[in-house]
Amino acid sequence: MPLKHAVLALVAERRGYGYDLAQRLEQRVGPAWQLNPSAVYPALDQLERAGLVAASTRASGTRRSPRVLYAATPAGLAALEAWLTTAQPDPEPVRSDLLLRLAFARAEHGAALVAELAARERSTAALLARCAADEPPTDARTLVDAAVAIRLAGEVAWLGRTRDRLASAAPLSF
Amino acid sequence: MPLKHAVLALVAERRGYGYDLAQRLEQRVGPAWQLNPSAVYPALDQLERAGLVAASTRASGTRRSPRVLYAATPAGLAALEAWLTTAQPDPEPVRSDLLLRLAFARAEHGAALVAELAARERSTAALLARCAADEPPTDARTLVDAAVAIRLAGEVAWLGRTRDRLASAAPLSF
Repeated sequence: MPLKHAVLALVAERRGYGYDLAQRLEQRVGPAWQLNPSAVYPALDQLERAGLVAASTRASGTRRSPRVLYAATPAGLAALEAWLTTAQPDPEPVRSDLLLRLAFARAEHGAALVAELAARERSTAALLARCAADEPPTDARTLVDAAVAIRLAGEVAWLGRTRDRLASAAPLSF
Repeated sequence: MPLKHAVLALVAERRGYGYDLAQRLEQRVGPAWQLNPSAVYPALDQLERAGLVAASTRASGTRRSPRVLYAATPAGLAALEAWLTTAQPDPEPVRSDLLLRLAFARAEHGAALVAELAARERSTAALLARCAADEPPTDARTLVDAAVAIRLAGEVAWLGRTRDRLASAAPLSF
């Protein structure tokens, strides 16, 4: 998932340093995204090369590592608007490593899969608890929280049902 | 999502030509995956370079494009087993372009987002109808179908709820 546009949106809201942008992005996408904050730096480099953000070096850093302040260019603001207004009406693909492994598992993998599904169910339920959303959502941020919470709750549900089915007495043919 | 392991699993089940493998993979992962069948060819090349599959050229093709038959090597069978038995107990990240756009939308994007959510809800419901799963699942294939169906149904639910919230009379602050 390219974060480039999200970084551009943050810079357009308020110019910032790489580190601050990473923190603001983490807050905005929430814990379920599992952001790697260092992904912000290559995104900024890409945006700069494309002329969508401009970097200026401030004296506030040290001489060896001056702090670089990023701001959106007019071309960046236009690209941001184009991204925000480009609808994607098609369904998102449902893809995961776990689904692939379920599809190719053999009978002897059943017990390990049941244990993995149980562990994943617990970790996903714990993440869901951290994403507790205001209901009803009152702003864009809580709207995203609510969407993520519904998605995670669905994930917990299928993990549990799949685990039950794999662990049940009725033999499953592989 | 790297399909490499899934292609390796198919080849291990029964050796095959690229085109046949693409068809078998599409059947196995189902329509919700939205497989690009041509993704099978770079996966086969990668597997061959890594020594996990071996290619042999058959006379059955034309001279200009001989048919290449792929089979798993012993190293490939070991790699397949390692993949099938490596559990991933952590939650999958919840990431999507639509969530990012919702997080960064401004008030003036509301009407277009409502239309996009409605379109996405329809297309996802149509995909769900194509993924109709046997209940209860009787084999690994229908177990995956059931997992995908639960996921898609959750997707339809949050799209609908998010659209309702965006379209409701109570103003949402952006």
